[in-house]
Amino acid sequence: MKINGTHYRSLWWNHDAHVLEIIDQRWLPHEFRTQQVTSLQDYADAIREMRVRGAPLIGATAAYGVALAMAQDPSDTNLDAANGLLEKTRPTAINLSWALERCRATLLPLAEKDRADTALQLAHDIADEDVEVNRRIGENGLALIREIATRKPEGEPVRLLTHCNAGWIATVDWGTATSPMYQAHDAGVPLHVWVDETRPRNQGPLTAWELGSHGVPHAYIVDNAGGHLMQHGMVDMVIVGSDRTTAHGDVCNKIGTYLKALAAKANDVPFYVALPSSTIDWTVGDGLTEIPIEERPGEEVSQIFWGKNAADDITPVQVAPDGSPTANPAFDVTPRDLVTGLITERGICEASQEGLAKLFPEHARPA
Amino acid sequence: MKINGTHYRSLWWNHDAHVLEIIDQRWLPHEFRTQQVTSLQDYADAIREMRVRGAPLIGATAAYGVALAMAQDPSDTNLDAANGLLEKTRPTAINLSWALERCRATLLPLAEKDRADTALQLAHDIADEDVEVNRRIGENGLALIREIATRKPEGEPVRLLTHCNAGWIATVDWGTATSPMYQAHDAGVPLHVWVDETRPRNQGPLTAWELGSHGVPHAYIVDNAGGHLMQHGMVDMVIVGSDRTTAHGDVCNKIGTYLKALAAKANDVPFYVALPSSTIDWTVGDGLTEIPIEERPGEEVSQIFWGKNAADDITPVQVAPDGSPTANPAFDVTPRDLVTGLITERGICEASQEGLAKLFPEHARPA
Repeated sequence: MKINGTHYRSLWWNHDAHVLEIIDQRWLPHEFRTQQVTSLQDYADAIREMRVRGAPLIGATAAYGVALAMAQDPSDTNLDAANGLLEKTRPTAINLSWALERCRATLLPLAEKDRADTALQLAHDIADEDVEVNRRIGENGLALIREIATRKPEGEPVRLLTHCNAGWIATVDWGTATSPMYQAHDAGVPLHVWVDETRPRNQGPLTAWELGSHGVPHAYIVDNAGGHLMQHGMVDMVIVGSDRTTAHGDVCNKIGTYLKALAAKANDVPFYVALPSSTIDWTVGDGLTEIPIEERPGEEVSQIFWGKNAADDITPVQVAPDGSPTANPAFDVTPRDLVTGLITERGICEASQEGLAKLFPEHARPA
Repeated sequence: MKINGTHYRSLWWNHDAHVLEIIDQRWLPHEFRTQQVTSLQDYADAIREMRVRGAPLIGATAAYGVALAMAQDPSDTNLDAANGLLEKTRPTAINLSWALERCRATLLPLAEKDRADTALQLAHDIADEDVEVNRRIGENGLALIREIATRKPEGEPVRLLTHCNAGWIATVDWGTATSPMYQAHDAGVPLHVWVDETRPRNQGPLTAWELGSHGVPHAYIVDNAGGHLMQHGMVDMVIVGSDRTTAHGDVCNKIGTYLKALAAKANDVPFYVALPSSTIDWTVGDGLTEIPIEERPGEEVSQIFWGKNAADDITPVQVAPDGSPTANPAFDVTPRDLVTGLITERGICEASQEGLAKLFPEHARPA
């Protein structure tokens, strides 16, 4: 999407320098820095240090890493070494191992002399496919926003609320939850987006930065505010992303999503989840009992990272008292009965086994 | 309550030095500092700068301010001047004008020579009355906690969740929502308290500091976490305070309270509100439509105040991107149908017009 008028992806191939460039996201939202990724070690560091983040972006970055390795030494040994190094950077990122396995399966049968070009083209393809999937999610979500807009007085904005950063910088472009927003804005539909801060890791500032940079009207709010806004008719629709959606339509997403879904239900606000179908876990039915929730380090809760102080330094500060115990469940599960619909690249469906089976019959299991 | 074994009130009279001492709460939870209040201007500063905070504590502090003024010059003119100076410090604090009016009405009929002693005794009385009201709230709430404890396996803690700081440092002692917790802990009932951070002003660290200092087991959590905890049976009861409760039982409290009430209802967790009856607004029925919600400065949202940096300095940091608009509704209304009961100094009642009328017949209006 755009940053002050210039279109960016979260990674792009510099054809002149023959090198990948990325946005170093550790400095956002306070500073916009880009970086050329010049060695395999640099690729590994970029993923491990979360200069790039978000499952689709990590996968695409790793594919470019394999391409660099093949340009340097296209042997089987080096392919295995590169895969091994990259896979260790974020062991739990499913897209990472998926992308690496795809590269390996494509390259291994080829003659060594053909591997470098094919690997680079494959990285381009993986990036482009992600863009296309998210573009389609946006197209499908746009229809919902347009429908709300037709029911409002001329010029009055459709007011959306989102949680976390399911934005373009967590993908290659468009984002998931943000894709309908960008498409609506670009199509001239007046919008206003409430952006949840999303403690403890404060992904809200990333979303606010994205929206502000692209020119989408928005307001940054604390996670506590959304219920009140919905009670007072100030939210027309909630759109969030999803880390994992079950075959029955339960949605595992950033901690706090469930509270917003409850408020949406209580106030008749449509609650939609935007997701690429690659994040549907067809092996899981009941999200609440079957998905284990990651407990993350307590420092994320007792401190605020990435605050900017009066000297413009980015510095963590401690907010909890010295020695106070903390708990930090990182995700929660929103049961399907709170979800109005799932927005996927194939279309929109009910959050249910039947709804998903209709859209993805190849995954439907016999009853 | 206790701070590392020593009992404190949030203000106390130093009989030797004949001066009021307070906890300078601006430094909490990172530093515990006390201060002697030695001049009328110092009283005004203490209230205005929020060295003391919380309606009951402000009222009691002001009464001691009047006592100091009467010791210096017991004339009518000086009584009016002191009242005027103190009342301007926090114009919207109802307890402040209530306490000052009570002092004035008591002192004005007296001979000047009797005013100083009476004013000081009245300040003591106002402080003691607040302690007694909160002690009774705790006694009534304790019965609920005991009842839950009897249904749990021996030694397993009753798990409570609270939002904001309805704690002893916002009153003279005990607090409102915390009073049942302290009494249960002191009575040997095993407890564990989940403490909401309470963005944007982060009152959660104050509650965590209180509980930790008194020895009550607790964990500091982000505001997003409570729904997940309730979904998984990890909360036995929610107790929050209230800024204003309507005659119909709707509860206006810190922003985010409503989201926790929704989660409690959805997961069959009892949701109680602890309040002194002085905060019931008998003139208001429907809280959602009749209570205007204060919109506070955006800096509270875009920044985190009172963070402690690596050099142990207490410093604000900016978390939102430069220039991002914000919204900051400070309170929300929890409708009565989400409230299991109201814990008052007179007893516990249903959150309804009928329930309140039974407990406070002198306020009941004919139907």
